[in-house]
Amino acid sequence: MASSILSQRDLEFLLYEWLDVAALTTRPRFAEHSRETFDAFLQVSAQIAEREFATHNRRNDAEEPRFDGGRVHIIPEVKAALTAFNDTGLLAGSMDEAVGGLQLPHVVARACFAWFQAANIATSAYPLLTMANANLLLTHAAEEHVARFVEPMLEGRFTGTMCLSEPQAGSSLSDVTTRAVPAGDGSYRVTGSKMWISGGDHELSETIVHLVLARVTGAPAGVKGLSLFIVGKHLVGGDGRVGERNGVELAGLNHKMGFRGTTNAVLSFTDSEAYLVGEEGRGLAYMFQMMNEARIGVGAGAVALGYTGYLHALAYARERLQGRPVAGKDPVAPPVPIIRHPDVRRMLLASKTYVEGGLALVLYAAKLVDEQETGDAAEAALLLDVLTPIVKAWPAQWCLLANDHAIQVHGGYGYTREYPVEQFYRDNRLNPIHEGTDGIQGLDLLGRKVVMRDGAGLKLLVRTIREAAGRAPAEFAGYARLLEAGCERLAEVTAKLWSDGDPERALANSTAYLNAAGHLVIAWMWLEQATAAAGKPGPFYDGKRLAARYFFTHELPRTTAWFELLESGDTLLADLDDACL
Amino acid sequence: MASSILSQRDLEFLLYEWLDVAALTTRPRFAEHSRETFDAFLQVSAQIAEREFATHNRRNDAEEPRFDGGRVHIIPEVKAALTAFNDTGLLAGSMDEAVGGLQLPHVVARACFAWFQAANIATSAYPLLTMANANLLLTHAAEEHVARFVEPMLEGRFTGTMCLSEPQAGSSLSDVTTRAVPAGDGSYRVTGSKMWISGGDHELSETIVHLVLARVTGAPAGVKGLSLFIVGKHLVGGDGRVGERNGVELAGLNHKMGFRGTTNAVLSFTDSEAYLVGEEGRGLAYMFQMMNEARIGVGAGAVALGYTGYLHALAYARERLQGRPVAGKDPVAPPVPIIRHPDVRRMLLASKTYVEGGLALVLYAAKLVDEQETGDAAEAALLLDVLTPIVKAWPAQWCLLANDHAIQVHGGYGYTREYPVEQFYRDNRLNPIHEGTDGIQGLDLLGRKVVMRDGAGLKLLVRTIREAAGRAPAEFAGYARLLEAGCERLAEVTAKLWSDGDPERALANSTAYLNAAGHLVIAWMWLEQATAAAGKPGPFYDGKRLAARYFFTHELPRTTAWFELLESGDTLLADLDDACL
Repeated sequence: MASSILSQRDLEFLLYEWLDVAALTTRPRFAEHSRETFDAFLQVSAQIAEREFATHNRRNDAEEPRFDGGRVHIIPEVKAALTAFNDTGLLAGSMDEAVGGLQLPHVVARACFAWFQAANIATSAYPLLTMANANLLLTHAAEEHVARFVEPMLEGRFTGTMCLSEPQAGSSLSDVTTRAVPAGDGSYRVTGSKMWISGGDHELSETIVHLVLARVTGAPAGVKGLSLFIVGKHLVGGDGRVGERNGVELAGLNHKMGFRGTTNAVLSFTDSEAYLVGEEGRGLAYMFQMMNEARIGVGAGAVALGYTGYLHALAYARERLQGRPVAGKDPVAPPVPIIRHPDVRRMLLASKTYVEGGLALVLYAAKLVDEQETGDAAEAALLLDVLTPIVKAWPAQWCLLANDHAIQVHGGYGYTREYPVEQFYRDNRLNPIHEGTDGIQGLDLLGRKVVMRDGAGLKLLVRTIREAAGRAPAEFAGYARLLEAGCERLAEVTAKLWSDGDPERALANSTAYLNAAGHLVIAWMWLEQATAAAGKPGPFYDGKRLAARYFFTHELPRTTAWFELLESGDTLLADLDDACL
Repeated sequence: MASSILSQRDLEFLLYEWLDVAALTTRPRFAEHSRETFDAFLQVSAQIAEREFATHNRRNDAEEPRFDGGRVHIIPEVKAALTAFNDTGLLAGSMDEAVGGLQLPHVVARACFAWFQAANIATSAYPLLTMANANLLLTHAAEEHVARFVEPMLEGRFTGTMCLSEPQAGSSLSDVTTRAVPAGDGSYRVTGSKMWISGGDHELSETIVHLVLARVTGAPAGVKGLSLFIVGKHLVGGDGRVGERNGVELAGLNHKMGFRGTTNAVLSFTDSEAYLVGEEGRGLAYMFQMMNEARIGVGAGAVALGYTGYLHALAYARERLQGRPVAGKDPVAPPVPIIRHPDVRRMLLASKTYVEGGLALVLYAAKLVDEQETGDAAEAALLLDVLTPIVKAWPAQWCLLANDHAIQVHGGYGYTREYPVEQFYRDNRLNPIHEGTDGIQGLDLLGRKVVMRDGAGLKLLVRTIREAAGRAPAEFAGYARLLEAGCERLAEVTAKLWSDGDPERALANSTAYLNAAGHLVIAWMWLEQATAAAGKPGPFYDGKRLAARYFFTHELPRTTAWFELLESGDTLLADLDDACL
């Protein structure tokens, strides 16, 4: 029976039939690998996700971590699952062999990890954060800190966090007030309060490696005054041995709507022993590496949750008997599976386009990371940069809608906690908020990414989409034309919005811009998939063609309203008088 | 300080400045009333909602009712709140004085009840169902049953339910299998299993009056074989005294995503003593009276939840300091309230149009009930009939989006259970499901309401909207033209969809039709409000004008994509091969 977590068939299609990931093995970095080793890691991921992660997903929601004032209690299945994950080696899946890594392509490691995210987003958050933390330190930290903190993380002994937000400063990092004072011995002492720290406290690992944004005494106001520090929950000796507690206290756990299995903490740092990462004043720049990785991770998580919701809804719709087709309603005719009802099909087909389209985008972005490291680095980095806000926000919005549809397909049952789909929704509802809200992503895209370097990122995106349109077979020429027209419209409206150089007015409808660009990018993903499926027979490929047709005919037309609003130059949202609300 | 539950000012505007509810007091039925008595009931509703309902809203979610095998345990605040509600007399608010009612206009009673729904949707569900149950019985039950069951309900001693769904038959009532056997003494014995029974068991009242759809032995298959029965949880003597238990057992409680404070039960009926309501075979027709009332009640509940979410988000956005305006970002400038950020305004203003537009529609529908009883009955009934699916489904979809926006405006805080907005979302998520899913409402609208009686309902709706457009002052002529164009498009596409008489194909995109018609109707509500506000100065009226502008410029354009899909005649959803999903 097919898994209800993710679709192996779809992953194979995207990785091998579309992205030609097998060809990466000709590059020196991946020379030890082959399609067989990729498949082996995908398979072991599916197995462990199914056996160790999915099995406690519900319990970890119902019996969320709790803090009794002394320690944090977490159901034991979480630790067992993390141990099983660590044993796969995937914690260092895409990292260098030199640090014990597997040197898998990012795109393969991303696909492997999606199994864990779909099976149990809350438990998978611990390794997700640990990997992003380790990656940052591998790039920017001193060698001795890599040995002391990173290697134990990659061995699964330590876990990692990112500590950016503060109670008074969520999205606005320029208001960070946590301060760092040089201790005279090269280390610093950090004091302040950090909020929304996922994995911020627990006893799942020997200690926790916090990456903390703080302001060194005398540093300037704003983001330029921020530096990045390593702060262990415990002091860690040069030999990697965990010593006594550092000045890091759990002030309390946040109790969330979903994602409950991941502890989310308020942490108090008091004269905590801290080690500077890289140079002073460069903290946010370093952190952005981790944040960009985390943003792709958030997009991947949103896709994974939407995907598993879709698969559950699909299975339910094939089994649940209810009602009869509209035409010739005969009360004594047997009821039909609800998948026969057009409106149920609408929800399923829309969801299919969201989750398979979202997965395609996430894997495409992950492959850009590989290109950045082993291919045409400059171009890949630029394209990834412009795509990142979409990779984060589009799945967070639309794959969440797939979770909403999954509830609706299940009817009343979907609204009960006896079925998993309501939890998937609650879990996924975090994704439009953390790692930069969707609103922030819109500002990032329209305010920075498409204008930076004289619009080079947008030009590259448009060129890339047009190339894909040019490669499409004749049967999809209509879709290609729609994409071409969308690209033109996007480029034109971008120029128009910035024509008078007033950011307040240019950005008044940045979310509509993000929506329009996002739907255009996903339409591109569907043309790519349709092209990869062209000429191939059978229901799997028919499904890809069908979904592409649906996306171009039922979804892409949504962009009309967004484009028209942007083209109208309406600045109501910038100009209005708040007193009228 | 303004309430965060509902807006008294907005209710006054809608009731008196727009709907001219004070003029109803010239009609004999309402002759005892005046604006002063209306205001007194509105005020007492606001007070009791604030003091007795809002105060336990969160606790009733966190400590949901539980069944220990013997009885259902509910936190004591619920009973106290219901007692306070009963003391207002609003249980029989719109009913005849002859049965102890207040003879308030429905529109006023609906506005009063919205306070309780906004303050605590779960607790308000008990009286909502009791009132709808009592109304049905007042119309259709025998006199002796009115005395035995209805009067105690209106006194607050008994509560009521509706028992339609069964585990195998949710939306498809033609598959109901619960059976009724005549007992020879005029009563019946009912046996079967009923699912999703809100208020199905508890000890909040002396007994519970279930209205049960069942099939009398020998009745035909399908909905025509359904009869309606009164089944008490206990046997009730002719004197209204509660006797021993009837054959009604609680098989279990459902554990929901939200709406947790309302028990939701699986009930087993075994040879339960039952009394026929009206005639055999007319059960569904009677039940539809209750369902139509309940559908307006669901729409009102969805509006109320969205409204309170909006008010909470608005208050938060005015207080929470974060970031700076985009232009001239100065890191040492003090942070601004987040209401200054255009994207936060977008969410607030969109929400304002959803909840105030939805409230206008719900009150308009309630006034149609009054017109039906004391005015131009035939026309009001027809218009109400065609509007009912929209009154139910539009707020369930869009005011739920207001709850989603309220979470997003709160950022990470909104995702925690320490803030109320996540509960509002979870509570409201039920509304697109119960009392006929939104999908069912789309089929009802396009498949029945706009085609019945040769399209008389649609013609009346279009005429009514056009009259409103004709009344609009010159400053809103642009909106009036958009409404006129929308009406024309709706009428044309309806004719086109039914032109070949194939329901399977006509209904393939019924949800898109419901969406388009719904947005058009709410645009009409906004033109009505703008017209009622015309020429009046001050931020409240400016807010109405601003919201109308937003709805016509940012929201109504959504209809383009829905209309284009409908006009294209696309039948993908009817024709596709399920194996491709």
